[in-house]
Amino acid sequence: MNFQDELKIKTDEIEAVIKSYLPKEEGFARTMAEAMNYSMLAGGKRLRPLFMRETFRLFGGEGKVAEPFMAAMEMIHTHSLIHDDLPAIDNDDYRRGRLTTHKVYGEAMGVLSGVALLNYAYEVMLSAFDILPGDERVVRALRIMAGKTGIHGMLGGQSVDVENDGKPLTQDMLDYIYRNKTSALIEASMMTGAILAGADEEQVKLIEQAALNIGLAFQIQDDILDVTSTEEELGKPTHSDEKNNKVTYVSLMGIEEASRQVEALSGEALALIESLEQKNEFLCQLVRELIMRRK
Amino acid sequence: MNFQDELKIKTDEIEAVIKSYLPKEEGFARTMAEAMNYSMLAGGKRLRPLFMRETFRLFGGEGKVAEPFMAAMEMIHTHSLIHDDLPAIDNDDYRRGRLTTHKVYGEAMGVLSGVALLNYAYEVMLSAFDILPGDERVVRALRIMAGKTGIHGMLGGQSVDVENDGKPLTQDMLDYIYRNKTSALIEASMMTGAILAGADEEQVKLIEQAALNIGLAFQIQDDILDVTSTEEELGKPTHSDEKNNKVTYVSLMGIEEASRQVEALSGEALALIESLEQKNEFLCQLVRELIMRRK
Repeated sequence: MNFQDELKIKTDEIEAVIKSYLPKEEGFARTMAEAMNYSMLAGGKRLRPLFMRETFRLFGGEGKVAEPFMAAMEMIHTHSLIHDDLPAIDNDDYRRGRLTTHKVYGEAMGVLSGVALLNYAYEVMLSAFDILPGDERVVRALRIMAGKTGIHGMLGGQSVDVENDGKPLTQDMLDYIYRNKTSALIEASMMTGAILAGADEEQVKLIEQAALNIGLAFQIQDDILDVTSTEEELGKPTHSDEKNNKVTYVSLMGIEEASRQVEALSGEALALIESLEQKNEFLCQLVRELIMRRK
Repeated sequence: MNFQDELKIKTDEIEAVIKSYLPKEEGFARTMAEAMNYSMLAGGKRLRPLFMRETFRLFGGEGKVAEPFMAAMEMIHTHSLIHDDLPAIDNDDYRRGRLTTHKVYGEAMGVLSGVALLNYAYEVMLSAFDILPGDERVVRALRIMAGKTGIHGMLGGQSVDVENDGKPLTQDMLDYIYRNKTSALIEASMMTGAILAGADEEQVKLIEQAALNIGLAFQIQDDILDVTSTEEELGKPTHSDEKNNKVTYVSLMGIEEASRQVEALSGEALALIESLEQKNEFLCQLVRELIMRRK
């Protein structure tokens, strides 16, 4: 089977897992459940759960214990998108061609349903104890997920991004934002997959480094595509960073150097993953495709 | 020692526990940590952690395992206050005589630091596994905390409250809002205290029922004080429910019947707690004082 067909099958499987964990639209809080599900079912590549499952497989993981974490990861990611789109933050009316959550359900529900998704992610992850009662791997995975989501991870990155909106940024600060806003959840995804499959400390550390590089390469590639793509290819307006005076890797070091960074970072990530005794060719191909992508 | 002196000592102890778990104000995300701590240190009765600790003591709990949960409970509660005050929700500029978080740090940081507090609560609770590794009680407490916070608890109550702002409410709907918006976190507090002390299923169920009644009585008493108190006694504007056309127990059934409900609910809560073999006179007195309070 070629990569694209395999990717389609795997993404469909993940879609089914995610759907099985969504809240029921019933009772007095029905509108909140609808708002949560509206944003969860808005499409997207489901990259983070895909990275989680493929890292789980890399280390020989079996059974269903990764599934609640996969669904929860997509809830955490989606919660951050709902809040990013709010009038007080990016003020976006559309995402992937659909009205954003606060445009459909109002701003108050935008705030609350975003929070409710984050909290529901914890409810879902904690249900993993039904699969492996009292298991140390579930505890470790929970702690990684919480840490990489919070002030020392994604939310910290978002706060620095928001705080410096429109201001000049140093390379250090930009790196901090990318590492946290983008890489942290990819690190959490891959580390959680590894931990739940029984990887040891050293292997989890190696995966964390690989995931950091993948996240950075992914984000820099985003910066590059914003400049080099057409709106038709990308499916969204291009040159938005320039229009918004946004400091990016491209504005700091130019397209050529940024491209070199993408190659170096993804090459390093692949070298790390391939240095392991365990093999998962699909995972390596996924990393390559992400860097080569045109959208 | 009289009740007020004992209350003061216990509240000070809880204050110290909370402070010991706050995030450090350092690094790039320093402003976010400051915003989190600003709201956490705005004062307040610390009722929920107090109920948690006293229920923990009721069942003979010893050691420090309840402490991260006490701090986390106050973070969850505070996160909901920050979001309640946002322009998109209640649009309040002041809380307890200080500017609200979004007035000091901006609306974007108001949203994000509220979320960050909720997430940090999970990081803090998960650290309880350092005290009791792999312990089933910690898992059960975590699941109660998550469930009572989310769409089937406080956040569900908030969403229904927001959705029906200014609209007529049925008794059923008002009960739903009070049970979830107010009682759910008191239930979680007392149940968590019981669970961590080793209470059995039946005892935890009894505590849940008592806490539900305490929460409802507390909220109805709030409605009554809004009508019967002076601004001087209450320390905040009175008659605000009437001005905002808010449906309350008082507007639905009048002050006399609302007062009877408060007595019945708190009496039932006390009867439940006193039916236990275990005793905690301070806890019973706390319930009585809450209902007798003038502010």
